[in-house]
Amino acid sequence: MKRIGNQTLELSGDCFIIGRAALVGEKEKLGTYGKYFKDVVEDDKMGEKTFEKGERKMLTIVNNNAIKNSGLKAKDIDLYIGGDLMNQIVSSNYVAEEMQVPFVGVYAACSTITESIGVAACLLDGGGFENILCSTISHFSSAERQYRYPLEFGNQRQCYSQWTVTGGGAFVVSSKKSDIVIKKVCFGKVQDYGVIDIANMGAAMAPAACDTLVAFFKDTKTKPDDYDFIATGDLGKLGGDILRDLMEQQGYNLNQNYTDCGHSIYSFEEESYQGGSGAGCSASVLATYIIDKMKEGTFKRVLLLATGALMSTITNQQGDSIPSVSHLIELNKV
Amino acid sequence: MKRIGNQTLELSGDCFIIGRAALVGEKEKLGTYGKYFKDVVEDDKMGEKTFEKGERKMLTIVNNNAIKNSGLKAKDIDLYIGGDLMNQIVSSNYVAEEMQVPFVGVYAACSTITESIGVAACLLDGGGFENILCSTISHFSSAERQYRYPLEFGNQRQCYSQWTVTGGGAFVVSSKKSDIVIKKVCFGKVQDYGVIDIANMGAAMAPAACDTLVAFFKDTKTKPDDYDFIATGDLGKLGGDILRDLMEQQGYNLNQNYTDCGHSIYSFEEESYQGGSGAGCSASVLATYIIDKMKEGTFKRVLLLATGALMSTITNQQGDSIPSVSHLIELNKV
Repeated sequence: MKRIGNQTLELSGDCFIIGRAALVGEKEKLGTYGKYFKDVVEDDKMGEKTFEKGERKMLTIVNNNAIKNSGLKAKDIDLYIGGDLMNQIVSSNYVAEEMQVPFVGVYAACSTITESIGVAACLLDGGGFENILCSTISHFSSAERQYRYPLEFGNQRQCYSQWTVTGGGAFVVSSKKSDIVIKKVCFGKVQDYGVIDIANMGAAMAPAACDTLVAFFKDTKTKPDDYDFIATGDLGKLGGDILRDLMEQQGYNLNQNYTDCGHSIYSFEEESYQGGSGAGCSASVLATYIIDKMKEGTFKRVLLLATGALMSTITNQQGDSIPSVSHLIELNKV
Repeated sequence: MKRIGNQTLELSGDCFIIGRAALVGEKEKLGTYGKYFKDVVEDDKMGEKTFEKGERKMLTIVNNNAIKNSGLKAKDIDLYIGGDLMNQIVSSNYVAEEMQVPFVGVYAACSTITESIGVAACLLDGGGFENILCSTISHFSSAERQYRYPLEFGNQRQCYSQWTVTGGGAFVVSSKKSDIVIKKVCFGKVQDYGVIDIANMGAAMAPAACDTLVAFFKDTKTKPDDYDFIATGDLGKLGGDILRDLMEQQGYNLNQNYTDCGHSIYSFEEESYQGGSGAGCSASVLATYIIDKMKEGTFKRVLLLATGALMSTITNQQGDSIPSVSHLIELNKV
């Protein structure tokens, strides 16, 4: 592993994604990527009494499916890196307890999956690990209860709000060869442009995505057109538009090859305002659509920047604005 | 870096602690390590309106002091790894925003500092980084408000409760040589023995410390007497006693060279029941007493296992027990 420029890490080429899985809810199945989402839950409580317990059960399934997809057994996993949106990342903690694999808990809000895969790739490069499981999950109902209002309250949603994806994605990152290689990682700097409205996450996160993407392009001396597909995590329609504007100010045009997973995950008819959000948004799209398209040869060079609004109800109530972060990974089809 | 046994990572020897700092409150200054705590805050709100904002200001100071102590400038830091006890690790997120350094947020409750230093050491070993800042903070008043009751409520404390340390510790982990080398890292597995009482964290965490310590001794074929000093993070008196019992069942005797930072941080007269807790407990003791004793030659081989009770008010209200984790680092005096 070596650093290029200020912030980008170029891996030695021995970090591959050898297993992947996604699990989503019915609303996500009805969206744009519906045909790519093979595993869908009908009951988002998963037969449990609470949404939080249901979320946990979904994460267990998606982790197990990714390990199965990699052709490994649970005992082959050396390390589990993950997190989620719940306070104290409890969904991941309970699932890590079930798995009995050494666990490195991370918190990067909706940027969790690229932080996890980024750290895993760098650790693999160091040589002490062979197979690292990375995963995340989000759940509309448990996130609404924790960050905004419980569903029973029936609050009206702002036109610039987004809909937390009920779903998760898991990946086995390995030194074993596959056709999906992790080439580069760029950990983001936290940005804060002063947005205080917890419904307007796209505006809060766009500067973080811009900062990381510009740093990466400068470090690697590349431009958007050098990639087949560039995806941000969950900026939504509005946040994606802000990102285009911010990038243009920096001299970069995000063209047809750019998509935001949040903006694109739901269909127009689903009336999800600016689109999807949540840690499971980009994770589930990466585990299905993006890697499917890479495997069939449509995308060869892909950049994924999951984006995280690092908001807290306590600091929000104290008048503080929403800091955000975005971590980038570059994937190549071998 | 190579793996020894199942779970332990042996570093190549190029990971050093080159800078360190602690900052604590007045109660901590009055305790056992008082003479080692040089930097103390009188006003734990730091002139701010809320404890949360005060906590953040303390973290900024301790980070800057560690960088200064290392002889580096802020611009020399390649990566910042850290977290804290606040929901969404907001203290660390805001400080990362001020610093404008790539930030990897982690969550491991009171086990944050050894998870951060462990990840940093493994990343350094991979070759893409030179200087990584690791830090954590905790604050009695903001933690009580978030996890239990606001101070204004004036609740009675159980005899088995602990007192969250107001304080933090920061470290610069580097490939530059110093006399404190990080030799090994052992990331822990999450354990859950079914403790549901959020005041009884020592009992919840002791099994996690035992699991990691036994795994490490087996992997390295060593025993407690091979080390000059073994410290757990914040099990408190009761949790420390439980750990001794659990270790004895596994055939290991923790003798005079074992201390729990939580048990020992406050003096008997301070009536802190089982002792201290909080992410800042082991971090501040490591940054002062432990490294001071290493530098003067009293301790040559040290094991630190910070311990984290991964509890959440939501899952606690839903009747779930408290999962816990403990990450270990081995430090040697060169």
